[in-house]
Amino acid sequence: MKQDLLGLKGMSTDSIKNILDTAKTMKLILSQPNKKTPHLQGRTVVNLFYENSTRTRMSFELAAKYMSANAANITASGSSVQKGETLIDTARTLNAMGTDILVMRHSMSGAPNVIAPIVSASVINAGDGMNEHPTQALLDMLTMYEHLGSFENFKGLRVAIVGDAYHSRVVRSNIYGLNAMGADVCVAGPATLLPQKMEDMGVKVTTDVDEALKDADVVMGLRIQLERQKKGLFPSVREYHKYFGINEDRLKLAKKDALLMHPGPVNRGVELSSSVVDGEQSVIDDQVTSGVAVRMAVMYLLSRGGLY
Amino acid sequence: MKQDLLGLKGMSTDSIKNILDTAKTMKLILSQPNKKTPHLQGRTVVNLFYENSTRTRMSFELAAKYMSANAANITASGSSVQKGETLIDTARTLNAMGTDILVMRHSMSGAPNVIAPIVSASVINAGDGMNEHPTQALLDMLTMYEHLGSFENFKGLRVAIVGDAYHSRVVRSNIYGLNAMGADVCVAGPATLLPQKMEDMGVKVTTDVDEALKDADVVMGLRIQLERQKKGLFPSVREYHKYFGINEDRLKLAKKDALLMHPGPVNRGVELSSSVVDGEQSVIDDQVTSGVAVRMAVMYLLSRGGLY
Amino acid sequence: MKQDLLGLKGMSTDSIKNILDTAKTMKLILSQPNKKTPHLQGRTVVNLFYENSTRTRMSFELAAKYMSANAANITASGSSVQKGETLIDTARTLNAMGTDILVMRHSMSGAPNVIAPIVSASVINAGDGMNEHPTQALLDMLTMYEHLGSFENFKGLRVAIVGDAYHSRVVRSNIYGLNAMGADVCVAGPATLLPQKMEDMGVKVTTDVDEALKDADVVMGLRIQLERQKKGLFPSVREYHKYFGINEDRLKLAKKDALLMHPGPVNRGVELSSSVVDGEQSVIDDQVTSGVAVRMAVMYLLSRGGLY
Repeated sequence: MKQDLLGLKGMSTDSIKNILDTAKTMKLILSQPNKKTPHLQGRTVVNLFYENSTRTRMSFELAAKYMSANAANITASGSSVQKGETLIDTARTLNAMGTDILVMRHSMSGAPNVIAPIVSASVINAGDGMNEHPTQALLDMLTMYEHLGSFENFKGLRVAIVGDAYHSRVVRSNIYGLNAMGADVCVAGPATLLPQKMEDMGVKVTTDVDEALKDADVVMGLRIQLERQKKGLFPSVREYHKYFGINEDRLKLAKKDALLMHPGPVNRGVELSSSVVDGEQSVIDDQVTSGVAVRMAVMYLLSRGGLY
Repeated sequence: MKQDLLGLKGMSTDSIKNILDTAKTMKLILSQPNKKTPHLQGRTVVNLFYENSTRTRMSFELAAKYMSANAANITASGSSVQKGETLIDTARTLNAMGTDILVMRHSMSGAPNVIAPIVSASVINAGDGMNEHPTQALLDMLTMYEHLGSFENFKGLRVAIVGDAYHSRVVRSNIYGLNAMGADVCVAGPATLLPQKMEDMGVKVTTDVDEALKDADVVMGLRIQLERQKKGLFPSVREYHKYFGINEDRLKLAKKDALLMHPGPVNRGVELSSSVVDGEQSVIDDQVTSGVAVRMAVMYLLSRGGLY
Repeated sequence: MKQDLLGLKGMSTDSIKNILDTAKTMKLILSQPNKKTPHLQGRTVVNLFYENSTRTRMSFELAAKYMSANAANITASGSSVQKGETLIDTARTLNAMGTDILVMRHSMSGAPNVIAPIVSASVINAGDGMNEHPTQALLDMLTMYEHLGSFENFKGLRVAIVGDAYHSRVVRSNIYGLNAMGADVCVAGPATLLPQKMEDMGVKVTTDVDEALKDADVVMGLRIQLERQKKGLFPSVREYHKYFGINEDRLKLAKKDALLMHPGPVNRGVELSSSVVDGEQSVIDDQVTSGVAVRMAVMYLLSRGGLY
């Protein structure tokens, strides 16, 4: 039976470990001059993106091409979407063209859950509204894993996630994944950008960034959508950075050698000061490389029915 | 000498049969896990689309990639078109880059006929204005062929085509192709959406959908461009569906097990009710698969000079 | 150490000759039915275009695909650019995804010079503002080389370049390259479209097109951006063509069999009359083919560290 990756909610620790170990191997390929492997030879990967995204779409596209898949893209502009076709009909059409893996991003939470049961292709959720972005959390965890050296070291790992948790699918997927691995997650941000009852997800929640960062092993900034400000969710970019932005002084509150992470693209001077983005603790570029590796691993495992 | 596929007008029955038989074989490849064949190894296929289209462009792109071609796309937005380059100069430029097969869609009827004589690449018409869309008709016929079992059964086959025949390049190509195969075509729709003298093309024409559907073997809905309504060509979507839409009751007028077809994307509740789109007689998804197979067959035959 | 191609300024004559000889061989591949070579097997080429361009982007994309590279595109619309990511962060991200060759076009002069030192990928400048467009000049020179038969014949070659030299990155790269090869370049155009002190680049400058064309071996038109007219840089398209456009009469001033060139897309009836575009002396289509060959050569040499 075909498998999908719709989210990390409910995914077993063993499945996560399997993905991360596979991705760790895949990552070795990315440093080779010849980045062509036969893992997806002749399989078809279609990226169906209803929201713009350079990095995620490109990451999946290159991951597919590195594994010799037939890869093609559809973005919202220029597609049948504008002709009023329903998401379901678009997905069925792509499925009927021989798609083996359908990577989809959609502004509606749950959109991939609607599609997965009606197509024979494996569906990968590349971000659905404010719900999940599982490959992002997996790439974050791969980056941590490579620094930690073993899965054992995830136990009790202190991860501080700072920023707009309310609108973030990244934070949700990370909470599910990190909890499964035994890490301790603390989420911090302005009260207006923290969802109610986030504590119920098994994390600590605070409006005090300094408290969140204290003794953290990993500090992760979340992207602020600057258009949120117009809606009055925070007073000004300058004030946001003053109270919630991560700069060199604040980063010192975390453990020495704590990892600084961000899903990108960074608003420099807002979520993170430029100095920490470019500083020694930053693993932001490595996250990008991990992203390609994780997507290779997920697609390869899906193609073999071995993701779960 | 190089060959082109500009339309089905004047194409011999033998050529059509050859394409359909080749496509039937190609279709087998689409159900394999490994959809990579060497049929177009090293050949270059460029999709030049002056009108947006997900499904047709994607169908050609995947067909090319399945056969190991170098495939690339140009769409109107983002191209030299905006710099004012003429269609002819764009085509010559693409030709000079090593294009072997130029797939083009253009809003102007006859555009591919202008281009074909001036390029060494084989030109495939992927829809030109209100003129022809030959690969669509070929995929429709492939879908029928697989249900009919033999070319003999096309003789006297009753095909009812319902909708906006006036603006439809699909209906024109189907009439040429189906006539060549010996089928009996009946076109139905509102008087304002039926071209004058369509009878001269060798088909029956009526404004009475029920009459057209009576004892039909194949019922094909045509897409209604909702923007036509603004021009007053039909009073309202609701009224269109009431008098010309194909629903379960109306479909019962056709033969038991008649095929329900549509070139897509369907406006559910307009041309077709959702229940018939998703019903047992619908072969709409199969048409999409046939589309990839037909495009593979056409491109392969063109590359060998064996289309005619 | 990795190499880049940022411009022809300062490039040695030997390097230029090496590129042209390699490109001449690559061009042979373009006339084969099978245009697939293993030169860039498994390497990754990303086209990052902040300005629209069909021909240049497509030329690089096909060149990469012909050599079996993993090729992918990003254009300004639909990218993280709209999310406000800096060029530097976008380039770093693409680099971290395994990009070996980053082809970039940007409206800001010097943009690739900013990027090259911070990425491990080889950067190719595909046009930066009003600065350089090195592969265009190389393809122009390849086209000349094939007609000249030997590098010796570049010495004293009279090349007349006519049009908007002020805004043209093409003219700058050609001057650097042609000077290195020993040609004599004369630039002509309206005074408002000639940069001050262009003579200091080692070329003759004149507002008299007839004088420039007299006894020329090569006549190259430069594209007029029609929007410049609004800024009052020239009075009208008709007047431009009358005084500066190249037509049959004017072309007769050049040597018999002089080559007529243009980087494209041509505004027919503005820079060039349609009759000369389509005339016997025109090598405009051949330039396009040379373009693919030159890009193949440059990418291949960069991948081996053999460009300089």
